[in-house]
Amino acid sequence: MAAKTGRYQQRLDKIYDWMAQEEIGMVMIEDAEGRRDSNIRWLSGHPADALLFLSVDRKSLLVPWDLFIAKLYGNADYLRPYTGFDRHPITACLKAAALLKIPRFSRIEIPSSTAYPRFLKFIEALPDFDVICREEDGAGSALEQFRSIKDEEEIRLYRAAAEITNEIIGLLEKQLKGGKIKTEYDAVQLIEGECRKRGCEGTGFETLAAGPERSAAIHSFPSYTASPFGTAGLSILDFGIKYKGYTTDVTLTVAADCTKAQERLITLTEKAGKLALGMIRGGTGTREIAAAVDAFFAKSNKVMPHALGHGIGLDPHEAPALRNRKDNSAVLQPGMVITIEPGLYDPRLGGCRLENDVLVTEEGAEVLTASRIIRL
Amino acid sequence: MAAKTGRYQQRLDKIYDWMAQEEIGMVMIEDAEGRRDSNIRWLSGHPADALLFLSVDRKSLLVPWDLFIAKLYGNADYLRPYTGFDRHPITACLKAAALLKIPRFSRIEIPSSTAYPRFLKFIEALPDFDVICREEDGAGSALEQFRSIKDEEEIRLYRAAAEITNEIIGLLEKQLKGGKIKTEYDAVQLIEGECRKRGCEGTGFETLAAGPERSAAIHSFPSYTASPFGTAGLSILDFGIKYKGYTTDVTLTVAADCTKAQERLITLTEKAGKLALGMIRGGTGTREIAAAVDAFFAKSNKVMPHALGHGIGLDPHEAPALRNRKDNSAVLQPGMVITIEPGLYDPRLGGCRLENDVLVTEEGAEVLTASRIIRL
Repeated sequence: MAAKTGRYQQRLDKIYDWMAQEEIGMVMIEDAEGRRDSNIRWLSGHPADALLFLSVDRKSLLVPWDLFIAKLYGNADYLRPYTGFDRHPITACLKAAALLKIPRFSRIEIPSSTAYPRFLKFIEALPDFDVICREEDGAGSALEQFRSIKDEEEIRLYRAAAEITNEIIGLLEKQLKGGKIKTEYDAVQLIEGECRKRGCEGTGFETLAAGPERSAAIHSFPSYTASPFGTAGLSILDFGIKYKGYTTDVTLTVAADCTKAQERLITLTEKAGKLALGMIRGGTGTREIAAAVDAFFAKSNKVMPHALGHGIGLDPHEAPALRNRKDNSAVLQPGMVITIEPGLYDPRLGGCRLENDVLVTEEGAEVLTASRIIRL
Repeated sequence: MAAKTGRYQQRLDKIYDWMAQEEIGMVMIEDAEGRRDSNIRWLSGHPADALLFLSVDRKSLLVPWDLFIAKLYGNADYLRPYTGFDRHPITACLKAAALLKIPRFSRIEIPSSTAYPRFLKFIEALPDFDVICREEDGAGSALEQFRSIKDEEEIRLYRAAAEITNEIIGLLEKQLKGGKIKTEYDAVQLIEGECRKRGCEGTGFETLAAGPERSAAIHSFPSYTASPFGTAGLSILDFGIKYKGYTTDVTLTVAADCTKAQERLITLTEKAGKLALGMIRGGTGTREIAAAVDAFFAKSNKVMPHALGHGIGLDPHEAPALRNRKDNSAVLQPGMVITIEPGLYDPRLGGCRLENDVLVTEEGAEVLTASRIIRL
């Protein structure tokens, strides 16, 4: 197993301090199919299925599904294979509490995503502990907050990831203009190949490529096909590359022989993007920005059917949400990396979306990516 | 919206009958990021983010995130966009109960995956109903059982999906032997291109391609790279194609210039596969088969670090599990489509896995796919 480096120790310290303050004896984190949780990667480097247990005594236990991967990537004080715990999360939790010497009657916090029926089973299996599962003020929520503000290493990785993304955007534009990209599949294949050539783990999520016939969908289904791309009308390409864990998330719109009504969608989308970027700075509420964009579209009788943006990081969707909804009280802070992605969709005209990744600073926004309307 | 076809009505009837028997007034199903649920696609055809509400009066309400996609694919009695419900599941549940005229004090079943903190919010927001969330005997579990036995249409689709998979396996073998596939990426690119050419939605999950240096991992990380593939030693290729929603799931091992110890892994894996296939028939417990394979490997001092197989369908992992664990009481039934995937892994030798998809019949097993050890 790799030595525990400073980066992981700094992150662990944040959650250990929080545990001490909250009087939590042990925190359990689970990364499994159907319950993906990048907190394990953020805290230990281990990028695949595993459980991670943290004790208030500042010790960590990694329980990976695959020991081979854990030895290559994982950083923790203790390492035990999942097979030793019947490959069962409740068994593992019980044995972890013993190994980490968690005192009886301590509070053990299990993941906020724990389904209600499973929560009951935990309670039953751990009668000697106070098992808790919380959303708003729990460990998951604390980690989400910690992760939303990127540290120096993460900002460095984001600059590198954005550079690769921008190179690929440049290649896409060149090949679209040169007539080499004719189908949705051609565009996706270029991204897949070029990102791996540049040392990326892959794409951060399934690339969405929708030619004029399919671009009216917010998220095209299927995500991409062999249909024409970049032909007359509006085509949308939404992708991100995953570099050392961190994903970018950009959307280009390709416009060819557009009607006036289609040009209007483009103009409104571009203006909405500028409006949003101009409002970004540490201390601003994200709902305020999203509401301003909704109001801007409303003046032209248009409705954007999705949120304005979101944080990105190890996951393609992280905190904060940039959403115009009553329950959104998120406030921008320097160090956050977010997307701004205004879009408009019309069954007859197709769709237009423009998405860039932005680093929030004290004074404003540093736009990291170079997505744009590509005109053929 | 497409007319409700017989296929969906037959499936809905199963769950409506179950609801009447269980005295459930309304069932809520959610397909969203982090809580994917293919039951909505199975019951309505809608393949993307949505809520689906079913009433004991046998009416269905589809609440899609994207109306455009729903109009192309969705089948339901009522269709309402999610934007009309504040894009919030609890608001949608309240309004759905009103629209479907669910009597006060009825039982409303919400998804078994509902996290405990969110369950509490449902209870609070719906005081006029008896909100329930169950694992073992709930709606999710009933749907899992229904879906585990494929209907005629699904078996027809699986034969077509297997045929495409087998064509791609043939192409892979040819190009490996012809020296055209040199890297993990080459193998993946062939699959991505060929499956889409044949009308597939894409791959059913992220393809895993691991050359000899990386094949000791059960699931390689990153899933594939530009590393050599098919060079001396053992290479693993695990993929599935998604045809009209249904995914296959196969694993090939490519063997070149193997040592005796590597040959031994291959021989044991092949024998384990044959042993398992010989035991498959309706009525057999899946734990019995998985235990027989574990025992077979144990005779040679080998341990398989994962389950023997699993059901497949709209999801790459469905019921039943073929797992040697005390809590597994699943029994094979005719019409199930499952994988059989014995594998052995060694940090020094690499890994070997052989996975095929099998239709369970009264008398035995019909092997649908043609994965094999490819020797270079």
